[in-house]
This record gives sequence, C-alpha cells and structure tokens, in this order.
Amino acid sequence: MARLVMKFGGTSVADLDRIRNVAQRVKRVQDAGNEVAVVVSAMSGVTNQLVGYVQGLAALYDAREYDAVVATGEQVTAGLTAIALQEIGVDARSWQGWQIPLRTDDAHGRARIESIDGTDLIARMQAGQVPVVAGFQGIGPRNRITTLGRGGSDTSAVALAAAIRADRCDIYTDVDGVYTTDPRIVAKARKLDKIAYEEMLELASVGAKVLQTRSVELAMKERVRIQVLSSFADLPGTLVVDEDEIVEKEIVSGIAYSRDEAKITMRRVPDRPGIAAAIFGPLSGAGVNVDMIVQNMSADGTTDMTFTIGRTDLPRARAIMNEHRASIGWTEMLTDPDVAKISVVGVGMRSHTGVANTMFSALASKGINIQVISTSEIKVSVLIGAEYTELAVRALHTAYGLDAA
Amino acid sequence: MARLVMKFGGTSVADLDRIRNVAQRVKRVQDAGNEVAVVVSAMSGVTNQLVGYVQGLAALYDAREYDAVVATGEQVTAGLTAIALQEIGVDARSWQGWQIPLRTDDAHGRARIESIDGTDLIARMQAGQVPVVAGFQGIGPRNRITTLGRGGSDTSAVALAAAIRADRCDIYTDVDGVYTTDPRIVAKARKLDKIAYEEMLELASVGAKVLQTRSVELAMKERVRIQVLSSFADLPGTLVVDEDEIVEKEIVSGIAYSRDEAKITMRRVPDRPGIAAAIFGPLSGAGVNVDMIVQNMSADGTTDMTFTIGRTDLPRARAIMNEHRASIGWTEMLTDPDVAKISVVGVGMRSHTGVANTMFSALASKGINIQVISTSEIKVSVLIGAEYTELAVRALHTAYGLDAA
Repeated sequence: MARLVMKFGGTSVADLDRIRNVAQRVKRVQDAGNEVAVVVSAMSGVTNQLVGYVQGLAALYDAREYDAVVATGEQVTAGLTAIALQEIGVDARSWQGWQIPLRTDDAHGRARIESIDGTDLIARMQAGQVPVVAGFQGIGPRNRITTLGRGGSDTSAVALAAAIRADRCDIYTDVDGVYTTDPRIVAKARKLDKIAYEEMLELASVGAKVLQTRSVELAMKERVRIQVLSSFADLPGTLVVDEDEIVEKEIVSGIAYSRDEAKITMRRVPDRPGIAAAIFGPLSGAGVNVDMIVQNMSADGTTDMTFTIGRTDLPRARAIMNEHRASIGWTEMLTDPDVAKISVVGVGMRSHTGVANTMFSALASKGINIQVISTSEIKVSVLIGAEYTELAVRALHTAYGLDAA
Repeated sequence: MARLVMKFGGTSVADLDRIRNVAQRVKRVQDAGNEVAVVVSAMSGVTNQLVGYVQGLAALYDAREYDAVVATGEQVTAGLTAIALQEIGVDARSWQGWQIPLRTDDAHGRARIESIDGTDLIARMQAGQVPVVAGFQGIGPRNRITTLGRGGSDTSAVALAAAIRADRCDIYTDVDGVYTTDPRIVAKARKLDKIAYEEMLELASVGAKVLQTRSVELAMKERVRIQVLSSFADLPGTLVVDEDEIVEKEIVSGIAYSRDEAKITMRRVPDRPGIAAAIFGPLSGAGVNVDMIVQNMSADGTTDMTFTIGRTDLPRARAIMNEHRASIGWTEMLTDPDVAKISVVGVGMRSHTGVANTMFSALASKGINIQVISTSEIKVSVLIGAEYTELAVRALHTAYGLDAA
C-alpha cells in the first residue's frame, strides 16, 4: 500500500470520455490498496481560449484578473473528475486552491507555492476519499486567486505530493515516459526506466518538454519521486528520482536538441575590462536571456564575442546592440537564426572522461561543424547549423550506445 | 449622486465586444457621479455547456460538484469585465462569492442567500473602485461553492443592492423594460414606466420571464428599487417599485399568458372528506406543482376534480394517479395538454370591482370558452384552449384600454 498523487494533463482530460477513462484509472489504483490524490489540468484548449479572451480585451492586463479567469479551466475539470469518480463508486470531492488552502506569493500569473495544508486531505484519503485538486492555481496573500504559470499543474502535483508525504507523484501525460532522445527523429530511441532529477532538468532546459522545469526542481528539493507515464497505455513509465537511486548509471542518458536558438557575433570589439558587462548588461536589463557565450582570443586589441539567445528575442537583441553601439564600440554585428543546440546529458559524466571527445568525433565524422561549445558537470552542448539537427542527434545516439537492440 | 448596482445578463456579456460595451456603460454611469457595483452572468451559452458536461457524466450528480463546475461561467465574466473596465481607465476588480463573502445555505444548485458582507465593497466604491461581482454564486456553510439556481444572478444583484444599501438595482437585459403584454403578440403593447413588485411577481409566475421570481420577492422584502432596461439601447426602462410609489394606478397593468400548462380531470371520484388530500398529496410528494384547482358540485355522491400542472409533468402525474387509483377511487381520468392560462394583473383591482367581468365578457364576445377560473387579490386567471391564446391576449389588451395610442 502506498500514498500516491496522480496528475493528469490537458490531453488526458480533453473530453468526457477521457475524464471517464481517468476515473477508471484512479479507481484501479485505489482498488489495489493505495491512497490516492488526483491533480488535474484544464481540458486541452480551454486555457488557450481563456487566455485569448483576456488578451482580446487588453494588451497589458491586470494579472490578478487574468488569474481569476484562467484558473476556471482547472476548476471545471476538478468538479467533472470528482463526478466521474463518484459515478463508478469512488468517494471523491474537488478542491480549489483556496479551499485547501494552497498558498502562494502574489506574483500573479507565475506565482510560487509557499505552503499547502495537507492535514484535511490526508485524513480524508485515510478514510477512503479521493481529493481531486485543481492544478495550476492557489490563493495569494490578499485572498486573490493566483496561477503558477503555464504547465504549473506539474508543480501543483509535486508540491501536493510533498505536503501529503506521498510515496510517489505519477504524472500522466500523452507520452509514455522519458526517452533517450526524440523518437520522431531516432526510431531506435529507448524509454528510460529511471532518470536523475539533474538529468531531467538539463533535458527539460534544452527542449524535451515532458515535465515543467520548476516541478523537477521542486521534486529534487523535496525528494519527491516522480513517475512520467501515459494516460492512454497501461505500462510503467519513467521514474525521475535521486541520483543515488540509480544503480546502473549510464554515462549519457539522453540526447536533446533545441531549434529555438539564434547566434549573434560582435566582431572586433575593444578587448578591454568590462566589455562583457557592456554587452550583456543591456540585454539582461531588457529580459533577453543569453545562453552560450564564447570570446575569441585577440591579437590586435580587439576580440570577437559570440553568444546565443532565444530566436524570438533576436530582433530585440539587435535593437539593443544598435542602441548601445557607441558604449560597446563594436564595428560589425553578425546574426544567424539558423542554428540548433545539441546536448548530451548524463550524471555518469561526473566519473567518466572523454565524453565530450566522443561527441566531437561523432560530429566530425559526419562533417558537422561545431560553432560554439558549452559544458556543465553533467552536460555537453554544441551549437551547429540547424540543417544538421537530425543527422547530429542520430549520430550521437549511436555513438553513445543508446540505440535500442 | 446615487449608489447603483448594475446587473448584466448573459446576452449582454455574450462576447468581448459586448463586454467592452458593458464597460463603457458602467463608465458613463460612474462618470455621472454615481458609485457603481456590477453583477454579471455567464457569457450566454456557457452555463448550458457546463451543465451539459455534468449531465453527460452522471444522471444523478453531486450538486456540490455541479456548483463548482457551473459557477466558473460567472467567474470568467467577472474577471473579463474588470479587465475591460480597467482598459478604459475605470478602477475595477472582480469578486467571487467566497471572496466577499456572499454566504448561502447548503442547498447546492438552488441555494438561498443568507448574508452578504458589504463593508469592504462600500469602502472601495467610496474610493472610486467598481466591484465586479460574479452573479449566481456564493459560499456555503462548509466552504463549498454554491449556486442560486438558473437566473440566480438577478437575485445576486438584488441581494447585493440591499447589502450595500444601493439606491437602485438596474437589471440590464435584452428587452428594454416590462410591457403590458408580449409585443410579439400585441403590436400595440406599451412599455410600463412603473410596475409594483406584486404585479411583477404575478406576471413572472405566468410566463413573463423578465426577472427571476425570487429576485422580485427579495426586492419586495428588502425594498430594493429595480429598474429593468436594455443593455443595447440607451433609454430608461421600467421601474419595479413599491405599490405606494405608483401614483396613477392602472386597474390592469398587464396581460400574461402561459402555454406550459396541462389540465387533468378526475371524473366521478367519491365526494368524501379527504379526497383532495388523497389526490394532491401524492402529487406534492413527487414534486409535481399543482396550480389551478376546481371541484364541481356533486349530486350522486361523486365529484369531478379538475386541476392544472406544468405540461412537462403530465406523464409523471398520470403515472402517479394510476398508482393511487385504488386509494383515490377514481373511475375516469381525462387529460388535456392543449390549454393555456391567460392572466390579467393589476394592483388597481384591490379598489375596483368588475375587473373579472370585463375579462369574461371580452372572451365571450370572441367565442372563447373558459375552462377554469382562479383569482387572487391582484390577478384573474382563466384556462382556455391553447389555440385561442393570441386572440384572447389581444382582446383583453384592448378591453382593458392598454393599447398604445
């Protein structure tokens, strides 16, 4: 017997049939002797519709009212799921964020959870009732409804799991687990049985959007074991757990890619102290997130500074660089939106050498030029021409021995 | 300067353009120097969609979950209306029932308002803010969301007006006031400037569905002046007020009709004490509402009992009569779904005689047979063949001098 949180995303509750399916799933898990709490997202499409209403009325809207409007999507699903559970004989009731209460700060639209009172929920679960919690929403310090930002229901589920001391938080979604890479690109991609929090974070940050990053961070901090699994198939998924729980550590667990990158090179800027601050200060001030940075050696007192940003930020970044041309003292700016970032991720790197070299060799053997390199303790990322994305991912998947037999 | 509640129904907030229109309307009233609180319904169609979801999952559903689901319609409109107001420079914020709080009993799906704390709202209105209150919803004694039943937003508005001691409650709708009768039947129908609460109640109960009956009862009890007016035209509407406020009382203010009737006649039932209880007890126990009742004189120890019910209840009523055939002792049951109830209503009847006779003469002159008659202090109703409905309404409208010049 275990205490479980089961979280269902928008596609899993997209219509009444799927909500009935969710109810059956919950019943089976409860019938197996477990205590269950459920967290639901809005029916798919509903949040976008509500956001569309708000944006249709005002370009700059009151985030408190946005939250009041958008939080209704989850409220509807929670009520409907409770009814579907009752209909098959499961004692259930819906919970809004303010009813629990699930308290957040007042950063409307992207609030952070501060506390969850799990006392009443635990007592009811022990009595056989299934709490169905509206994900994504909470209550702020001034008694207003808050939301946690897009994908926030994952975070709701993990925070709830911590609050009720659940043995595991099962995230039901439209994929059946975390793969070694995108199966649409590599047919031989394998589903991972286990992955470490840190690996999941690195994969999420480079585009494998199975779980919201904040939910993984929270799970790591609160030591909540997560399982990612399909709500449509009845198979075990991927466990996201502490590194210590993984006995057979792969050197590389996954290959991720992101095409949402753009590269900027500032040619021949003065090689003086403070030049980096002169370039990146204005970008940071304008909320443009800079990812990889490379500074070339200089000979004649100038240097080339290359960095990457999100592709949608490119026009803004160019404008900012033009605005600060005099203070930076640049003479030429090159921009390239046709780049992709490829990353290999694995906690095993900590105790192995030569991981990066395998990557460079594999890419070289396919004639792929590396434009920028960055590394962290458990990740090596390279920037390449976007047209080589699939070729690179496939080559690396083979090179690290990840192909399924 | 006055303190006003402005209530907008579903068609008045049906889309973003109409919500913007509502905001402009509110701004004009506030700019004229008034303190304004707004009450909104769900966007038209939304409540039906949500009810459809619930009914699609369960025939007998948990009314508490129904309320959690259905109350979201008003929550969305309240948030959107607040944003639309802010966008044109009006300080505004949305209020859910639980935030005010608007407390109700726990009769989910048809809850009654028990109290509204208006303190905070009044302070904010005095400071120039417009509270936008989600109609139709409240919070029950166990911290669950409740709803007031269909059309409940009118009741929310009137109760709010009483709680904040408003000078008037303006109900904006898709008609521009209360008419002497249905203008679709009588082209010469006139809009009334004023109508008494009691008259409005009688008209509402016989099918002139401009205002929810409970809202009028509440207005009468709390002495809240109501104005019914169009949200699409900029014209004064009809004031619903205390009889004492109406100086020039018409003998008859309006002619109403209802085609949702059915007639049942129990032939030759034993004329014994308790026979009425034997017939109407089981009907009442099953929730079938009996309206008009006529018992004919008996000669041979039997009597004919004729009564009317809502047409949709007819199959159920027949089943109940069959089930209790032995205990009632009836020999023949006649049913007729093709009947209509026509009513003339007016507080002036209290001090005038001959009102009913004018009705009977007018109908007789058109060859219309009266099947059942019932009267109250300010109303005379007759049951006639449904095919005579329009003819009867037109004849009576002329007979009581209500035709517009």
